[in-house]
Amino acid sequence: MAKTNRGRFFEDYRLGEVIRHAVPRTLSGGERALYHALYPARHALASSDEFARSVGLDAAPLDDLIAFHTVFGKTVPDISLNAVANLGYAEGRFLKPVHAGDTLTSESEVIGLKQNSNGKSGVVYVRTTGRNQQGEAVLEYVRWVMVRKSDLEAPAPETVIPDLAKAVPADRLVIPAGLDFTNYDFSLAGEPHRLGDYAVGEKIDHVDGVTIEEAEHMLATRLWQNTAKVHFDATFRPDGRRLIYGGHVISMARALSFNGLANAQMIAGINAGAHANPCFAGDTVKAWSEVLDVAETAAPGVGAIRLRLVAVKAGAAPFALKGEDGKYLPEVLLDLDYWALMPL
Amino acid sequence: MAKTNRGRFFEDYRLGEVIRHAVPRTLSGGERALYHALYPARHALASSDEFARSVGLDAAPLDDLIAFHTVFGKTVPDISLNAVANLGYAEGRFLKPVHAGDTLTSESEVIGLKQNSNGKSGVVYVRTTGRNQQGEAVLEYVRWVMVRKSDLEAPAPETVIPDLAKAVPADRLVIPAGLDFTNYDFSLAGEPHRLGDYAVGEKIDHVDGVTIEEAEHMLATRLWQNTAKVHFDATFRPDGRRLIYGGHVISMARALSFNGLANAQMIAGINAGAHANPCFAGDTVKAWSEVLDVAETAAPGVGAIRLRLVAVKAGAAPFALKGEDGKYLPEVLLDLDYWALMPL
Amino acid sequence: MAKTNRGRFFEDYRLGEVIRHAVPRTLSGGERALYHALYPARHALASSDEFARSVGLDAAPLDDLIAFHTVFGKTVPDISLNAVANLGYAEGRFLKPVHAGDTLTSESEVIGLKQNSNGKSGVVYVRTTGRNQQGEAVLEYVRWVMVRKSDLEAPAPETVIPDLAKAVPADRLVIPAGLDFTNYDFSLAGEPHRLGDYAVGEKIDHVDGVTIEEAEHMLATRLWQNTAKVHFDATFRPDGRRLIYGGHVISMARALSFNGLANAQMIAGINAGAHANPCFAGDTVKAWSEVLDVAETAAPGVGAIRLRLVAVKAGAAPFALKGEDGKYLPEVLLDLDYWALMPL
Repeated sequence: MAKTNRGRFFEDYRLGEVIRHAVPRTLSGGERALYHALYPARHALASSDEFARSVGLDAAPLDDLIAFHTVFGKTVPDISLNAVANLGYAEGRFLKPVHAGDTLTSESEVIGLKQNSNGKSGVVYVRTTGRNQQGEAVLEYVRWVMVRKSDLEAPAPETVIPDLAKAVPADRLVIPAGLDFTNYDFSLAGEPHRLGDYAVGEKIDHVDGVTIEEAEHMLATRLWQNTAKVHFDATFRPDGRRLIYGGHVISMARALSFNGLANAQMIAGINAGAHANPCFAGDTVKAWSEVLDVAETAAPGVGAIRLRLVAVKAGAAPFALKGEDGKYLPEVLLDLDYWALMPL
Repeated sequence: MAKTNRGRFFEDYRLGEVIRHAVPRTLSGGERALYHALYPARHALASSDEFARSVGLDAAPLDDLIAFHTVFGKTVPDISLNAVANLGYAEGRFLKPVHAGDTLTSESEVIGLKQNSNGKSGVVYVRTTGRNQQGEAVLEYVRWVMVRKSDLEAPAPETVIPDLAKAVPADRLVIPAGLDFTNYDFSLAGEPHRLGDYAVGEKIDHVDGVTIEEAEHMLATRLWQNTAKVHFDATFRPDGRRLIYGGHVISMARALSFNGLANAQMIAGINAGAHANPCFAGDTVKAWSEVLDVAETAAPGVGAIRLRLVAVKAGAAPFALKGEDGKYLPEVLLDLDYWALMPL
Repeated sequence: MAKTNRGRFFEDYRLGEVIRHAVPRTLSGGERALYHALYPARHALASSDEFARSVGLDAAPLDDLIAFHTVFGKTVPDISLNAVANLGYAEGRFLKPVHAGDTLTSESEVIGLKQNSNGKSGVVYVRTTGRNQQGEAVLEYVRWVMVRKSDLEAPAPETVIPDLAKAVPADRLVIPAGLDFTNYDFSLAGEPHRLGDYAVGEKIDHVDGVTIEEAEHMLATRLWQNTAKVHFDATFRPDGRRLIYGGHVISMARALSFNGLANAQMIAGINAGAHANPCFAGDTVKAWSEVLDVAETAAPGVGAIRLRLVAVKAGAAPFALKGEDGKYLPEVLLDLDYWALMPL
């Protein structure tokens, strides 16, 4: 019996199947410190226990994307080891803050399957849920990936494409218990802008840039126990380049967006996301945002802002996104649509 | 209203103004581990809870320079985003050890202003204080920087140059409550030399060298939430090089000084400092020290040693410092004058 | 009196002498997070407090090699600063798990000495013991190194070569108190293979590879407070290359071995080890294992598996080890013989 994991191929997935992913993970202040060393993250709520208490939480949660990457990383050996492409995200919701000391596990339900017309691959849709040591869901999201077939003779499954929301409705966002922005300290948070200061359609150039090094993206990707060879092994791709984990670009862009969106404190939902072009070491990542929507929430003083977050390479034209052909420009790395919580 | 922070220009500062810096920060064992991964730090008091208890403290404090960098990093968006040069330090005192779990904030008072004769920039003097979650001051220091003017028509402020001590007097150093070196374990600390073994004027070549990598200085600088673009963005300077945060060189040199000064356990004061030349990735940093003064303190067994700590690039002549013209030699990176606590 | 440590030379060692190594070290969740960022470590028992509790421990111990590297690092200034070669390991046993919060110290007894026939160097054998803050031994191992003489006139000591076991007998392995694999969750651990699924002589190619960066091996080596210049200073060797600490390769290979040996949860013994060839940044490390032995233990459900773990550079032939001349092939980096605990 072969001892190593060759990963699953398209024909190995069954609709409705629930895959329990391996290797639970206890997070600590170490992950927080590393996150802040890897990304220029400065949102006050995840930076300071005192700030978190001043807005009704017990202590600073870990940055929301630490939870995301940890839960995501566990799915890689089962979902995307033989993936050709990571096609999209939808219906992502952060359900409960994760703190130092929490242990996360991850499971995915297969909610859609569609074999490609060439018969060589297919698209797998999964809904992934991360849970803490009490079994409480902390995060859920849908992801779909294109996966190769190993046995080209395997019959195509019945095509099922899930009906996914274009965006998480604001009233479905989960606000952390106790969160109260009525005494929010804008001075300590770093910027004076509240939700009412942002207009739908407004675009913000976040100005700063970070040039990425091989050591950094590998440290990050290993930390989330993401095992995809393409991120680590310079001999894996014919061009000798290591592809940077798309989540590294998400975290970099989110951290850069502090400059202009310092009060978009917590990520509450992920509506959609595309890794528009590959990112490699040596690229200098910059970011811009567009305000897509604003909403109130039931929590005191807490509003929600829906943002398009775009990561680009340095040198891109201002607010570069797509060409006349509707395709992403080559200098665009990421196009992420998410909800964040912000003081009203 | 522009959402991003363009930083302050010379004409934006007012004498006596107190600037409360953004983004409080809770530190943990994660910062300690990263500090020890980034620098060859080995001073026993910050390395071991048991050693710290054996000299009267509750637990190992975080390395003193973690507190310094954290407090300093917060000032960057308000003080040095448009700085042309970091000119000097004075009257630095470490007032209370910082431990894992502490949350630091930072504020600066403008204590001096002097417009340059060219009318395009000026020097801003600030006294910065770091505080913990109880509001206790943990650190204070004066720094002065040259800052560009944005509006060249803005009138020059009245020139006020603060009267700064050339060195912190030994009797003004603050000794951590409870510190007692009478049962100090020289064997565990790594060297047998006590204060009486050092002579004023003695110079020590610390022998070891470290070649700096881009990933390392960026990890460090982000960890302190220092946002200056020049450290991160390879497209920012015309030469495509990322300038290394001067504090990275301070920590590297201080850690290298363990070899010969293993018992200079805690930094108590910063008298002066100059970043003599810029440091870039690929440089190999070495260090030497000169004993400038020695003093007793009121704490049992605890002496103070005043040291010049000089960081140089590999290949520099022994004890290289200044040329005949009185200027720093090009291979000198740092000239720091500080007080450390050492067993008598 | 020279203040810096020049290290010991061969003539400075005395048979029976016990050297107490400097700088005790308190470990935290920070070291764990860094370990997981530096290596693709995924063994569930060290990754999750909950998993550790499910097999009878109080909380996840730190990865066994964190303890090894920490204890080893302390010996470097006293044992191997003037070493020409690290020749071997034997009789290594992990005696007690190390947890976040523990403070480790290290001491070594000189158990053998043999001057080389050229009179310029000699072999020093030491038995090193690591202890926690309660004074309990957590780890012991024998290491022998070739060390230069400084004074070539110094007389040769009486030759004493210790009688070392070729392997730690299975019944001498220490099983952590409380460890019980009877309810072991193979699904969470990541692979279904139990001890009975492995046959003596079976070889496993662990498939994955990691290309090593300068920043990474230096972060790791500093974290263990290993001060050997050759790892950090690009100006030290004539070829301008920094030699990678052999322990970095051990940890990398052990982490890579998860893929095929996910249930070899804890390292219990080190029988032998050779750093077959030097490793440098840019090398892509891969690993394979051979099952050398299997045994039962007194703990419920807990077996022991003796493994040869071989690290090679990418491009090596399958299961590359030695040439016809009996020497290691140039692409082999490490040949380690160890015991791990695995569910029966």
